[in-house]
Amino acid sequence: MARLFIKQRVLTPGPVDVPPAVLLEMAQPIIHHRTKQFQAIFKEVSERLQRLFRTKNPVLSIAGSGTTAFESAQTSLATPGSKVVVVAGGKFGERWQDIYDQYAATLGLTVVKLNVPWGQAVTAEQIKAALDANPGVSVVALCHSETSTATACDIKAIAEVTRRSDALLLVDGITSVGAMPVEMDAWGIDCLVTGSQKAMMLPPGLGYVGLGERALARLESFKPKGAYVLDLRRWLKSWQKNDVPFTPPVSLIRGQRVALEMIEAEGLENVWARSATLASATRAAFQAMGLELISKSPSGSVTGAFYPAGVDDKKFRAGVRDKHGIHLAGGQSGRGAEWEGKCFRISHMGYVDAGDTLAALAAIEAELRESGAKIAPGAGVAAAMKGFGV
Amino acid sequence: MARLFIKQRVLTPGPVDVPPAVLLEMAQPIIHHRTKQFQAIFKEVSERLQRLFRTKNPVLSIAGSGTTAFESAQTSLATPGSKVVVVAGGKFGERWQDIYDQYAATLGLTVVKLNVPWGQAVTAEQIKAALDANPGVSVVALCHSETSTATACDIKAIAEVTRRSDALLLVDGITSVGAMPVEMDAWGIDCLVTGSQKAMMLPPGLGYVGLGERALARLESFKPKGAYVLDLRRWLKSWQKNDVPFTPPVSLIRGQRVALEMIEAEGLENVWARSATLASATRAAFQAMGLELISKSPSGSVTGAFYPAGVDDKKFRAGVRDKHGIHLAGGQSGRGAEWEGKCFRISHMGYVDAGDTLAALAAIEAELRESGAKIAPGAGVAAAMKGFGV
Repeated sequence: MARLFIKQRVLTPGPVDVPPAVLLEMAQPIIHHRTKQFQAIFKEVSERLQRLFRTKNPVLSIAGSGTTAFESAQTSLATPGSKVVVVAGGKFGERWQDIYDQYAATLGLTVVKLNVPWGQAVTAEQIKAALDANPGVSVVALCHSETSTATACDIKAIAEVTRRSDALLLVDGITSVGAMPVEMDAWGIDCLVTGSQKAMMLPPGLGYVGLGERALARLESFKPKGAYVLDLRRWLKSWQKNDVPFTPPVSLIRGQRVALEMIEAEGLENVWARSATLASATRAAFQAMGLELISKSPSGSVTGAFYPAGVDDKKFRAGVRDKHGIHLAGGQSGRGAEWEGKCFRISHMGYVDAGDTLAALAAIEAELRESGAKIAPGAGVAAAMKGFGV
Repeated sequence: MARLFIKQRVLTPGPVDVPPAVLLEMAQPIIHHRTKQFQAIFKEVSERLQRLFRTKNPVLSIAGSGTTAFESAQTSLATPGSKVVVVAGGKFGERWQDIYDQYAATLGLTVVKLNVPWGQAVTAEQIKAALDANPGVSVVALCHSETSTATACDIKAIAEVTRRSDALLLVDGITSVGAMPVEMDAWGIDCLVTGSQKAMMLPPGLGYVGLGERALARLESFKPKGAYVLDLRRWLKSWQKNDVPFTPPVSLIRGQRVALEMIEAEGLENVWARSATLASATRAAFQAMGLELISKSPSGSVTGAFYPAGVDDKKFRAGVRDKHGIHLAGGQSGRGAEWEGKCFRISHMGYVDAGDTLAALAAIEAELRESGAKIAPGAGVAAAMKGFGV
């Protein structure tokens, strides 16, 4: 059968498509990492990362996933014997709770779990109440953009609260950094983490940890008791010499230099605006299709919608993928909700544009109708076009 | 200013976008062409080309452009001292007339020019009349798809006429082979030519000449008097040994192997059907926008439309390109018409799909409205979506 969509468009909320220029750079011959040549690349990457994170302080590049990076931050910055507040309103917040639970005995931590309903954002008032109710909190850890629920909180207002306490604010910015405005220094975020396969426009394999002044001081305040390779002190000590403590993914770091160059050439604010408009136009399209958004406080990097009655998740996403080459994510389940099979999610991060989004919306409309949903043909695409001003 | 379209989508009727797998293959190290390794690749390319051309006879791969290939065919197959009929209804037909004019003295040719109005297709009846009126015609040369006017003729019906005469039918299939049905052997086409930068999904740099039984016999019937490097006898003699007479563009031929593999994996009929549907949906979109098509007999590989009053060609195409990354072609001028500045053209050949076409149509609508054209927002895209069944 003839196919009208022959290209693959990866619109899952990570990994996302990687620009050809980045792929080509990663195809360059391997260089050894203990060389001046690598150090020069690494230095440039570090400086560009600082501009991306909007900080004058170190941003570490750590081999591994976003989880590697966030676990490093969680375990390196929580003072042993203290309390930690961990927010969950989705799958990833729950993971950060699980990680602290696992370390609770080793580090002597009391884990205070602040849960919000899936699809809702934690508020600054809730954080303040948790700190007031729990003296001796050393760390507040949460997601800026909770990928599983496509929900973003007001991280600026939350940082206003934590900066007036002794607690460090650890932000999972895995689906926010590079896609949504985050001002690490100006807002007073103590630790900001992201991963390479999202707005950074790279394949998976790198995590990044930005450390503010208070986080740097915290690292010096106690001896590490967690995992060896995840100890940020080691990474920081090497970073200060434009180096890494363990063999780095050289090709990814080369690619990261080019991807960051592209982001700076486009202009970070322009990248934020592009993602924001892709997200708002997608929400308008979903609403025009009569779909219910999964979030009450939608993220600017990923959008999710519940299926209308009668739509089968696996059949729908297989149809969108196999017939139209559009890769979407499904729903996730956790302690707070069972959304697997009930919703789908689409990304607005990184190397994606209005053209891809229109193609995806056309495919989504077609497959929802194929599944029996009553959607006026073209309704979603027309709403998105209006949002794009085309 | 934030840009919502960050990708470049090349939808000119050649060159067209090249698939990443082909680009990667072309980035492989150079191999020498007088080696068994190259011969194996060249043999595979030749066999795949025969299946693409639907012929059991040789298809030569010639370094150069589509014009190089067609001029080779024109000069190698016209019997010196004979008459040649050359059809023009656009810029490329006029070029084939110019080429025979230039060789007229050297080869002793009488050039019979059969002109049809731009945007109209020559008919089998007109070809028959020209042959009847001009005894001693050795060659009828014409475009299957005249790129400048986005017009296709009924080449099957025309071949029915020529195969019953002594004239060889030379078909410029530069924007038809691989995009529209062409059955070289079954229809009795004597010589079929295309270029690499169209439906072949390669960068420019190669032309292809398929030779039928009667053309092969013609090559043996007289001694060459035209250009040395364009003499098809040399190319054919080498081809019979899986070789080329002059240094070939090795990387392009490597890439061609992969591109042809992709076409065969998709299925040639499926590729034809995809291009046909992209073309028909685009025509429906243009008509829904109130645009007049430039062709009375539209090609399945390229579509053109006249601008509504008040739209400036340069401003429109610069807007579509600079604001939306969509590359379109303008109109062309020649002896038969002055269409430069009056129309634009969009391709449906090769590595292009419904997603790209929707993105292009959204950009076209937006820029036409920007230029003052009265088009209901989304009208064109909605019509195309209907055509795509999404």
